[in-house]
Amino acid sequence: MIHPDRFFDPDPAIRKVARELHRRVVDLPLICPHGHVDPSILAENRPFPDPTDLIIIPDHYVFRMLYSQGIPLERLGISRRDGEPVETDQRKIWQTFGENFHLFLGTPTRSWLEQELAEVFGIEKTLDGETAMEIYDEIAAKLATPEYRPRELYDRFNIEVLCTTDAATDSLEHHRKIRESDWEADVRPTFRPDWAIHLIGPGWKEEIDRLSQLTSKEVSSYKDFIAALEERRAFFKSMGATATDHGVATPRTEELSAAEAEKIFARALAGNATGEDNDRFTAHMLMEMARMSVDDGLVMQIHPGSYRNHNRALYETFGKDMGSDIPTATEYTGNLLPLLNKYGNDARFTLVLFTLDESTYSRELAPLAGHYPAVRLGPPWWFQDSREGMTRFRELVTETAGIYNTAGFNDDTRAFPSIPARHDCSRRIDANFLARLVCEHVIRESEAEQMIVDLAINLAKQTYRLG
Amino acid sequence: MIHPDRFFDPDPAIRKVARELHRRVVDLPLICPHGHVDPSILAENRPFPDPTDLIIIPDHYVFRMLYSQGIPLERLGISRRDGEPVETDQRKIWQTFGENFHLFLGTPTRSWLEQELAEVFGIEKTLDGETAMEIYDEIAAKLATPEYRPRELYDRFNIEVLCTTDAATDSLEHHRKIRESDWEADVRPTFRPDWAIHLIGPGWKEEIDRLSQLTSKEVSSYKDFIAALEERRAFFKSMGATATDHGVATPRTEELSAAEAEKIFARALAGNATGEDNDRFTAHMLMEMARMSVDDGLVMQIHPGSYRNHNRALYETFGKDMGSDIPTATEYTGNLLPLLNKYGNDARFTLVLFTLDESTYSRELAPLAGHYPAVRLGPPWWFQDSREGMTRFRELVTETAGIYNTAGFNDDTRAFPSIPARHDCSRRIDANFLARLVCEHVIRESEAEQMIVDLAINLAKQTYRLG
Amino acid sequence: MIHPDRFFDPDPAIRKVARELHRRVVDLPLICPHGHVDPSILAENRPFPDPTDLIIIPDHYVFRMLYSQGIPLERLGISRRDGEPVETDQRKIWQTFGENFHLFLGTPTRSWLEQELAEVFGIEKTLDGETAMEIYDEIAAKLATPEYRPRELYDRFNIEVLCTTDAATDSLEHHRKIRESDWEADVRPTFRPDWAIHLIGPGWKEEIDRLSQLTSKEVSSYKDFIAALEERRAFFKSMGATATDHGVATPRTEELSAAEAEKIFARALAGNATGEDNDRFTAHMLMEMARMSVDDGLVMQIHPGSYRNHNRALYETFGKDMGSDIPTATEYTGNLLPLLNKYGNDARFTLVLFTLDESTYSRELAPLAGHYPAVRLGPPWWFQDSREGMTRFRELVTETAGIYNTAGFNDDTRAFPSIPARHDCSRRIDANFLARLVCEHVIRESEAEQMIVDLAINLAKQTYRLG
Repeated sequence: MIHPDRFFDPDPAIRKVARELHRRVVDLPLICPHGHVDPSILAENRPFPDPTDLIIIPDHYVFRMLYSQGIPLERLGISRRDGEPVETDQRKIWQTFGENFHLFLGTPTRSWLEQELAEVFGIEKTLDGETAMEIYDEIAAKLATPEYRPRELYDRFNIEVLCTTDAATDSLEHHRKIRESDWEADVRPTFRPDWAIHLIGPGWKEEIDRLSQLTSKEVSSYKDFIAALEERRAFFKSMGATATDHGVATPRTEELSAAEAEKIFARALAGNATGEDNDRFTAHMLMEMARMSVDDGLVMQIHPGSYRNHNRALYETFGKDMGSDIPTATEYTGNLLPLLNKYGNDARFTLVLFTLDESTYSRELAPLAGHYPAVRLGPPWWFQDSREGMTRFRELVTETAGIYNTAGFNDDTRAFPSIPARHDCSRRIDANFLARLVCEHVIRESEAEQMIVDLAINLAKQTYRLG
Repeated sequence: MIHPDRFFDPDPAIRKVARELHRRVVDLPLICPHGHVDPSILAENRPFPDPTDLIIIPDHYVFRMLYSQGIPLERLGISRRDGEPVETDQRKIWQTFGENFHLFLGTPTRSWLEQELAEVFGIEKTLDGETAMEIYDEIAAKLATPEYRPRELYDRFNIEVLCTTDAATDSLEHHRKIRESDWEADVRPTFRPDWAIHLIGPGWKEEIDRLSQLTSKEVSSYKDFIAALEERRAFFKSMGATATDHGVATPRTEELSAAEAEKIFARALAGNATGEDNDRFTAHMLMEMARMSVDDGLVMQIHPGSYRNHNRALYETFGKDMGSDIPTATEYTGNLLPLLNKYGNDARFTLVLFTLDESTYSRELAPLAGHYPAVRLGPPWWFQDSREGMTRFRELVTETAGIYNTAGFNDDTRAFPSIPARHDCSRRIDANFLARLVCEHVIRESEAEQMIVDLAINLAKQTYRLG
Repeated sequence: MIHPDRFFDPDPAIRKVARELHRRVVDLPLICPHGHVDPSILAENRPFPDPTDLIIIPDHYVFRMLYSQGIPLERLGISRRDGEPVETDQRKIWQTFGENFHLFLGTPTRSWLEQELAEVFGIEKTLDGETAMEIYDEIAAKLATPEYRPRELYDRFNIEVLCTTDAATDSLEHHRKIRESDWEADVRPTFRPDWAIHLIGPGWKEEIDRLSQLTSKEVSSYKDFIAALEERRAFFKSMGATATDHGVATPRTEELSAAEAEKIFARALAGNATGEDNDRFTAHMLMEMARMSVDDGLVMQIHPGSYRNHNRALYETFGKDMGSDIPTATEYTGNLLPLLNKYGNDARFTLVLFTLDESTYSRELAPLAGHYPAVRLGPPWWFQDSREGMTRFRELVTETAGIYNTAGFNDDTRAFPSIPARHDCSRRIDANFLARLVCEHVIRESEAEQMIVDLAINLAKQTYRLG
């Protein structure tokens, strides 16, 4: 069902080299330095409940496409905030999914799912309206067996290290449980303080309260806030974290004076912060995070340029992560000037930049990465984490930044059983990209043989300081 | 002369599949939901006067390229507003065209014309300075025969439905004549109220006067204006229209209060509207048009991002549509927020988005179309309606939005005899795109066989609610 | 070592045609209408000192990549402004380069260098840490021979014409020496008045003083300034110049009244010009330069969109051209409106536009070039002067502007011995691009045979009015 040559150029010369390069990395372990797997599933190691709950309900890549064609989220079992009833018949939801699986033709979601169904669950048929129930039953039966529990899948997937993404106020209890267990796996948290920094976000005050509870001193000033974040970073680091992550509307950076920062923070505590306060404070906190990274060695990641919850009606009914986060044009050259001028030449600092705006690849990101010692480019993010998207990234970035200023692959997923398919896709695309360079006599095959290993595992390990 | 494999990848595996997919759609009827054919030619069915008048003079794609190389428009027979003499020797104009036909090498204009000359007119030679007169005579002779009258060509082209584009104040007399004739063709108008909405455009007041004359009440207020547009939409619908079209500088949307709208409209009537009045009113009218579309079911199309008549000297001498409409960067995510939040989840509403800014394909348009039930992406527009442009569109859009959130093909042309070549080009590019996916094992050939039919006709019919 | 099919698509059909097209231009002379070769090396014709001084130290393409991976510029022998010591052991620097040459895999810098080492210096091994010293010695030995002096290389490279880039206040002494020598070579200056126009740049006042000394009247007003520039242009023209060049932050154009221009210029002389003064004055001076070009026939080039010296710490320590000029998004349609409306229809005027923002290729630049008689598109600039970059340029531009509104190739280099490799790369990419069009039956092979010669030499000669 899954073709051994998938994603390889049909040109026989390229395909031959691509196969050979892919063969060198196909069995290497998976390095997962950035993702959204819920650590509780690995801490508790309970069986996954059923196919629908595993594959459809948590994955906004999946249900956004069904929604775009007029299928209400209620019919897909997505919980409403107001508690109004939604479909609970998991088989019925799966049937709807199967009947509409053609909508995903040509998308990475379909490719990942097909590979996951075939290679993780041994499904031999194509999912459609006819086969949906049969496939549901087959997956459900497997999920009930011990081999399909999370830790067993993790080991079978040959994951060498997996980093999760965690709020600054996460207790990391699940991580503690994993570390204290006799299961030998390298699962690490990542420090993501967005909800503490986003002064005007919903629940900000509660996040500050949690921060107060978790740290040695109540957070009643900007100075306390900084101290609390430093304390939490140290805790994350003690729990294995090697990186931080920052989701921001823009990569604007700007250093405020301590007095200005205190004023804004005080306004926020009083519930009076403005949008501009928030923007400036976020710009300042990126500077602060860079400063702390220079000190504690945590690799800093910036994910800018997503307009979150664009569909407000949907957000109000169902909450966030409903597939309506829409990218916007993003500017790096000017926005990052203060941060890179202050920290970009520092050998202790690593900054991984992501984008949803592909026009910046060749215009801004590759030139920045090809110059500043601190900068590495993250792999194609989100909508661009795909066959064509990854190819464009390599084509637009490599000539200016080379491959050694890129951060290798990360799967960025909350869909745990799709992890092997995602890494395999990336390795295939990189093999195919290098194979074309070999066949166009830009690089030699012996050079490509080292490069494919670097792309598959070494760059991720080096960039994220893993092992 | 016209190679049967044109536009197909030379890779033998891809070419084989592309041929087979193309074979399945090559004889399907043409669905033309958006274009600029003058309905009078079909209403009157008079012979086309001569090759120059048919192919050169009305087509700014053609003469803009000659102009860019220093050939004055006067030498190409383009009428001047001031009545000063221009070249009237049609053979001499055609000769100039032939001598410069190499300028179009590699452009879609040349590909379309070559196919049109070969397949519509049976020309067997390449157009150049040597062959120009011979080819002119051959076309002229054919145009004089009954088989080359507009309706006969329409039938021979196998057009199933053709929509024109018409001002809100068009009487639709030509459409009436066609409908009342015994010629069985499905020719429909499209409601395009740009000139009534563009408060500061030349002739706006006259357009409002025409609106008053054509509707039941004089338009002396914003409220009247809205009522008049609703009345005209109903009339267009009664004449077969299924869609509206809106050419705007930006896709900004913003709802004004009725009082604000009244104030701006009053200023416009008094001749005092400002640029910002116009921008806000246009933004508001897009909201109004969406509201009406929800009610009457007319599909809404937005064509933003062209700076019209950039070359003012040329505009003053020759008028509009002289090839100097130049695209600008276009922003959708923020601009469409109000409209999509109010109407984007409504199952009754279809909004087709076009762009001239390809950087928005993967960044904004595909994510919007892959989420909002109302949104469909129009095919590559204008400069991008080309072999490479259509390929980029599919590559940049499909992975995020699939093909089922795209609107199929439309030829958008005023060059009537080029219609078959344009549809064939699109079908070939789509076949080639799918063939590559098949050969890279992203989709199966059986899946591509359905997809190519959907791309060639079904998506256009569904999106535009035709038949 | 250098594969005869490098840069050609591995598809056998395309490769066959590409080879044949390349064969037709491989031995044609090199037309170099825009570049940064130091004319003194040709005036004096002294042997190049050593490999490091020739290849590494002057080339920020090379050392920026090493710097991006944490190698301090001091270790690469780059002089510090403060005179603090830097590495002076040229062999040690070359060794560092060799050990890190893998960083350039997949970049044009590596491709150019490999071809230069093989074809100019006859090196038969791949540069790496093992071979570095051996290769150094081999190059050094050759540089000491008469055959490797600058003029001998120039002749061997088969350069037909080479234009340098020179400040408005350059005495052109080196050019005079070349012209007065018995060496028959066509070396021409290009008028680049950036430092005289950039009111708030470092050393502006000194540049104005130089201008006063070099011209017939002291520059104490805007009017004097214009007269001085006109005088210098005439001098440059008398020394063979056919073009001017303008590096600007944005392509903003705007005509100031003489009074406004005088006021701004007076503020600048008094040391009080603001950033906005500078922006407006630059916008105005582009208008003035166009006006003068209409008069004197010098071809005008605009290179916008680079944020110069982004890394301020590096700039302060080492000066400019250290690899930290970072592109920004660039807007042409609106910015060029005043200039193109005033001069764009003038047959006497040629304006060559460059960009670092590839999103403008299809959106703005090709539509402008495909309409305005004055506009030609410069070849892919800087980071985009590469295999993939040149291919994207042709794919994004040709369908709208054809090839005859493009300016042919220029190498834009200060790395003199890389010139043949750069032209060969461009000719190969153009041959490959045309070969694909031939194989997809968009153009005929006979047509491509003319087009490849036009792309290789004719368009550059015509655009820059050379010979």
